Order: sequence, then C-alpha cells, then structure tokens
Amino acid sequence: MDAKQIERYFQQHRGDHLEELKSFLRIPSVSSLSEHKEDMLTAAEWLVNAFEKAGMENVKIDETGGHPLVYADWLHAEDKPTVLVYGHYDVQPVDPLHLWESSPFDPQVRDNKLYARGASDDKGQTFMHIKAAEALLQLNGELPVNMKFIIEGEEEIGSPSLPAYVEKNKDALEADLIVISDTGMQGPGRPAVCYGLRGLAGIQIDVKGPKGDLHSGLYGGAVQNPLHAIVEILESFRDKEGVIQVEGFYDDVLPVSDKERAEFASLEFDLENEKKELGITEDFGETGYSFVERTWIRPTLEVNGITGGFSGEGIKTVLPAEASSKITCRLVPDQDPDDIVAKLKAHVESHKPAGVSVEITEFDKGKPFLTPFDHPAIQAAGRSYEKIYGVPTAFTRMGGSIPIVAAFDEILERPVVLMGFGLASENFHAPNEHFHLENFDKGLRVICDYLFEASALK
Amino acid sequence: MDAKQIERYFQQHRGDHLEELKSFLRIPSVSSLSEHKEDMLTAAEWLVNAFEKAGMENVKIDETGGHPLVYADWLHAEDKPTVLVYGHYDVQPVDPLHLWESSPFDPQVRDNKLYARGASDDKGQTFMHIKAAEALLQLNGELPVNMKFIIEGEEEIGSPSLPAYVEKNKDALEADLIVISDTGMQGPGRPAVCYGLRGLAGIQIDVKGPKGDLHSGLYGGAVQNPLHAIVEILESFRDKEGVIQVEGFYDDVLPVSDKERAEFASLEFDLENEKKELGITEDFGETGYSFVERTWIRPTLEVNGITGGFSGEGIKTVLPAEASSKITCRLVPDQDPDDIVAKLKAHVESHKPAGVSVEITEFDKGKPFLTPFDHPAIQAAGRSYEKIYGVPTAFTRMGGSIPIVAAFDEILERPVVLMGFGLASENFHAPNEHFHLENFDKGLRVICDYLFEASALK
Repeated sequence: MDAKQIERYFQQHRGDHLEELKSFLRIPSVSSLSEHKEDMLTAAEWLVNAFEKAGMENVKIDETGGHPLVYADWLHAEDKPTVLVYGHYDVQPVDPLHLWESSPFDPQVRDNKLYARGASDDKGQTFMHIKAAEALLQLNGELPVNMKFIIEGEEEIGSPSLPAYVEKNKDALEADLIVISDTGMQGPGRPAVCYGLRGLAGIQIDVKGPKGDLHSGLYGGAVQNPLHAIVEILESFRDKEGVIQVEGFYDDVLPVSDKERAEFASLEFDLENEKKELGITEDFGETGYSFVERTWIRPTLEVNGITGGFSGEGIKTVLPAEASSKITCRLVPDQDPDDIVAKLKAHVESHKPAGVSVEITEFDKGKPFLTPFDHPAIQAAGRSYEKIYGVPTAFTRMGGSIPIVAAFDEILERPVVLMGFGLASENFHAPNEHFHLENFDKGLRVICDYLFEASALK
Repeated sequence: MDAKQIERYFQQHRGDHLEELKSFLRIPSVSSLSEHKEDMLTAAEWLVNAFEKAGMENVKIDETGGHPLVYADWLHAEDKPTVLVYGHYDVQPVDPLHLWESSPFDPQVRDNKLYARGASDDKGQTFMHIKAAEALLQLNGELPVNMKFIIEGEEEIGSPSLPAYVEKNKDALEADLIVISDTGMQGPGRPAVCYGLRGLAGIQIDVKGPKGDLHSGLYGGAVQNPLHAIVEILESFRDKEGVIQVEGFYDDVLPVSDKERAEFASLEFDLENEKKELGITEDFGETGYSFVERTWIRPTLEVNGITGGFSGEGIKTVLPAEASSKITCRLVPDQDPDDIVAKLKAHVESHKPAGVSVEITEFDKGKPFLTPFDHPAIQAAGRSYEKIYGVPTAFTRMGGSIPIVAAFDEILERPVVLMGFGLASENFHAPNEHFHLENFDKGLRVICDYLFEASALK
C-alpha cells in the first residue's frame, strides 16, 4: 500500500465526498418517529446507490419487519480474512429544535466542522467505511480483505430487528472480525480503540389517578396527585449521589481490577476542562469513583423525561389525571437487561404510592460488552491510528450502549473492534450535532490502513 | 314581588336566554394564553351589549393594563341598599383537547346540561345575574336595590389588576354588600352559601444543569440530571400522606373549633360515591381530617405540571439540560401568600441538589377568606335558596380560591356573599366542563328573590 497515494486520493476527492455526505445527511431518517417511515426507506436507497458506486456487490435492501437494513459485499480476496463492517443510517430525534444554530437536516460546514443530525452518529462514520473501500478499489482494483457491510436503520431505537437478522443470516455474515465506527476518540488528536460498552435497559412508567383532571382547589389535599406519586417513585430510585436503591441492582456487577483502574487513571483527562465544556460547576456521582469510571464501569439509572399536568404559559391550577416518565439504565458486565427490568418492576411495585395505579412499559435492551484489550485485532487498530495520528492510541471503555455489539459477540463469536472517530463534544443526541472534519480526513486513511493490517490477521 | 310571574317570565324566555349564553360561550376568552388577547376584548364587548340590552346604565370597558373589565350600574332605588355583583368572563385553558366529547367553544346541551368551557366557571353564572336584573326591569320597570356590576377578565390568572382597580375606584364601587356566583352547591338539589375560601400561592421552579442536552450513555452517572434534581426538590415538599414539610408552613393556620368541625360532619357527604365519581379507589391526605376538611380547612401544596427531557414516541437516551415544574399552594386563614412564597423559596434554597442551578418565578397570589356564617346578608341568601329549592341551605367553606374576595373584603370592607350554582362534578378547569340547567333555571329565580331580600338589609 502506498500511504501517500491514498492521502492524495482523499485530498483530491474531498469536495465531492463532502457533498455526497451532505446529501445523505439531508434525509431526516429519525427511526423513533413514525412520521419519518418513508425517509428511512429513502436513506436505505441512498446507501444502495453509494455501495454500487463504490464497486461493492450483492447490494440489497433487506426487510426486517421494522426499518430495513442494507447489505453489500466484496468477496474476491482469496485466502484473506473477511471484515464485516456494521453502521447505522438512522438518527436521533432533533427536539428541542429551537436550540439548533442551523437546521438539523441542512448540513453546513463551519470552522472545519460539519453540522447536521447524524454527522457524527453515525451517518458520517458509516460513510467513511464506504469511501475507504471505494478508494482502494479505485486505486488498486481490489481490496486487501474480503468485506461485508450491514447498515441498519434501528440503532437509535435499540436495534429490535437486528439480533434475529444476524441469527438468521449467520452463515452469510460469517467474518473474521467485525468493525464498528460508532464510538468516540479520547479527545482532539487522541485516537482510541474501545474494548467495552455499557448495556441498556429502559422502561416507561405511567401513573394514573382520578379519571379526569381535577381542580386543585376543590380536590387538592384529598386526592392523590399522579405527579406527586411519580415524583415519589422516581425519587426512590437513587440516593442524593446517584447510587441506585433498587434491590439487587448491583448484584451482578463484576469487580474491576486495580490494574485496569490504574490504566484509566493514566489516561489524560482534564476534569476542570470537561466541566467547562459541559457548562457545569460541580461534578456528580458515586463517591470513590472518578468521572471516567462513573461513565465507563458503573451502572446508572437516569430519568430521560417526565410529563404531566400543565406546561403552557402562566399557571393552571390542575390536579392532573395522569403522569408519565421514561427512564433508562446503563449496565456494566455482567448485569443482564432482563434481570434489571424485572428488578425495576419489583421496585416500582413495592414503592407504589397510595391512591394511584401504575403501569410499566419495557423499552429496548442491550447487554454490556467487553473484549480483552490485548486481542490482536484490537492492537492492530491501535497501530493504524498511531500511524496516521502520530500519537499512541488509548484503549478505553465507553459509557454508551450499542446493543448490536453484544449480539455480534454472542451470535457470530468474533472479535468486535470499535474504531471511533467522533468526539464527546460533538452533541450526538443533542442539538447542534457536528463532526470534526479533521477526523473525517484522517479517519478515511486509518480505515484504509486497517484493512491492510487486517489482511495479515488470519 | 310575584314569584309566579318571575318563574313564568324565565320559562317564556328560556330558549332565547340559552342562545344568548351560547354566543357568550363561543368566545374563547382564555386569559392565560396570549394568543387569545383579541378574544378577551370580544368577550368584554359582548358583555357591554348584554348590559345595555338588560337596561343597565353607565356601561363601559375599563382598561386595567391587563385584560379589561366591564362596569355597569343601575342606581335609581332611592334609600335602598346597593348590591355589587362581581363575575369573570375569562376561562381556563382547554388542554388536553382530545378528552373533550364536544368542542370546548361549541356549546351543546346534552341531558339538560350545557357543555362548554366557562359554562359553569364563570360565564354561565355571571350571565344569570345580568338576566335576573333584566327580568326585574322588564317586569317592574325598576330594581328593588341599586346595582353595580364589575366583570373581570383575569380571574383564572389570579386577578393581577383587580385589587388596584378596586382601590382606585373605591368610591365608585361603594356598596352595602358584594355578591359573587363562582362557587359550588353542596350537591344536586342541595343549595349552599359559602362563607370561606382557601387562598393561593404559586411558583414555577426551573432547574438548569449542563449547557446542552447530553447523551445519557456518555455522561450518565457523572453529571447531575436536572430531572432527578427537580424530583428531589418536589419530593422534599411533602411526606407520603401530603403533609407539607416546608419549615413554618403551618405556623399561621388558625385552629378550627370543634363546633365548626361538628357542622362539617353533619353535612351530607358520601365518600364512597365521591370516590366513584372521581374514579379513584383510595382517598388520600392528612390523618385526622375528613375528605371535606382536607379540601376546606387544610392548606395544600400540589404539583400542577412537570416538564423536561423527551416525551415523544419511543425512547431518547437523553440527560436533559433543564427541567421545570409549576406548583400551587392552597392557603387557609391566617396564612399569608407572600409569607408562604418566602418559605417555599427558602425551602428550595436549602434543598437545592448539587450540580444544578435553580430559579423560582412567582405566580398569582390570593389571601384566604372567611366571613361569620351568621351574618344577615349570608342568612338572607340562605332563605332565598330555600324558597326556590325547597330544602335547607348548607353553609359551607370551599377549597378553591377567588383572590378578589379577599381584596373586596379588605378594600371595600363590606360582606361578601358567595351564592354558587355550580356542582363539583361539572369539570371546571378540566375537559367537558358543563352546567346543569336545572340550577340555571332555579338560580335565576334565587337571584331575583335575593335582590328583594337584600332591599330590606340596609
């Protein structure tokens, strides 16, 4: 491989690549909102065209029962390993819309950052893998490894269809390793390979009281208020420093060795700068754990939303008929999402306030994931980053969840390599999501290098 | 006075009266929402026409800085007392709109009940006083008392302009007694004169955390979640049976005599039926107080609304930047709204969770009100009800607040007679507000009778 030639190729095609990516980002493929169902199909069709243009074969849209996924492959590298690339074309909702500086589906480059919903998570990173393969096929007429792609449209809603799809297509998806770019770097200019993710378990709690909204003057004091009831339930979940009070919640949490914690402590992390970036004056969380450890190796329970009663302008003296809240837990090895949801349900049942009924709806679940950080496929990724970025690669865990990682791990039984190019400051899931184009440019070269590194892994 | 003639008059004009009232109810005069500012003026102009048609004089719209109020009088009953009638033409918001069986501003009669926002609270009851005066002027060419009307447009937002207006127009508003129909009867066929009301103090609590919404996976566990913070504050306000934990909250609550409590106990009240009507299985509240006492003589603190985070379809794993809640307290003699708001602020200050900032906005306030129930003007009202309904009148307190009652009491120093024709089941402030037309028909006759009773009071 001629690294210089590859670098030049991407420099020459940069304008076209960015225009292409923008056209992908303009499609409002929000998987959680049914009004965007058609847009999901548009995004899948966009990928079909992109794969065909790249020179991939067997390109197809596979129905899943939910939003479809897109498959493509190139299998002409005889006796070479097969790399399966996973990405997702769905994005998070955009509200609150008024906080966006430019429209979420009108991509704009400002200060060498590309602003749009999905720019970083995960359309931008998915796009890079397609363009890396395209570049090598253009330059060399072949790839150093066999490649398979599956790009799904349900990651942001917990990938409900993908495990069954992978199980069903286990043979067709056979690979030597799985590469996913949906995680973050350690910081600007500081590459990282992630070897652990937290899992996810989410529920919605609906509290119902009187059959209709009541006047708080006529009934206040004598009828349980569903808002007070939901507050009582939510407050019972955690103590004041966020330690979860659900019985048995921490039972299956694996201890983390002093050696691994020492590795975390050695990572460059500037707490004061982090607080400044986030706009907070105090950090928060369990005594005895660092900021990094609280987000990587400790489970959480977070309220993601509460609704009930009057929220308009001014005041309305109402005692509302119902209140609702969505909560999600982040899980660490070896917590099991089904077990945690059962424990949450038991907790709500035993903390149900008088005078109301409570209903629980389960949301998406994902198991936590962990791979030894000395695995050859992981170490090779570290080398590729180091060659392009010129600094050592950090081996990290991450606080987020990619349910499919655990599924790949379990079903395909192959190492999963998480090569992220995002930065934590890039507002995934929030207004003004963006992607630093420095990592777009370097990332394309890292991926090309890794395909050559991977060709020696078999 | 010929009671039969009056009864016949209202029977003959019933169709016209209902059509007129419907045209009043079609005006969406929601005082709390700025989008209805024009509708407020339309409603005030509607009243001007109605007063002129009734034969009232000096009819005018008075600006207040907020929504205007409408004044009218008839002052030709020499040496007779003057009755000041107060009412309000503004109504509560209508959400949740989808729970209305017919549109809130498309009045419909079903089963001898008139359904519309404001049908009972308070356009319907205000309208009855205008029509009673019109009837007596039509039948007798004169009224048995001098009359003054002030109908305001800000009652549902706490009457912010009225106290200053009454203070400024103290001489013009001079009267011997003040009559207000904005309260409820004891039950169907069971008239009541109310001699006590709870006061009101409301605040909004805004909690701010990080400068933008965060990904709950990347930051959950290490950054304080404003939703958890607001839950912690709200939960600290009350214990599990609703007893308020704010320091000094009960300091100024006057003891209620055993005699008065015995009167309450003697009132017909069917708790099981009440629970059935409300759709609840358990009642709620302070140990040692009955359902009635909890709503009449005990102060409350109720959360009226909470917002924050994601509330759409499905799930969004967000750690939101802010959360907000509206709360109101109902106060009893001699609690002072300013003192209570100061205590709420001190409580929030001393219970502020780590890692967030908290801001408090004050809303409308109203003092509690109490008149001795053996006052002649009150007893006369009891007689008028009994003549028309044929049963003894109950003398009650009420859990709601009419801030202006305390203002009239303090500024004009005249007895306030609360003659209500509403029923507690009529969904004021909630979807499907309605007014039982039986009480519309009988109420018109009660008001006429009371004007004759009042003529003997001076």
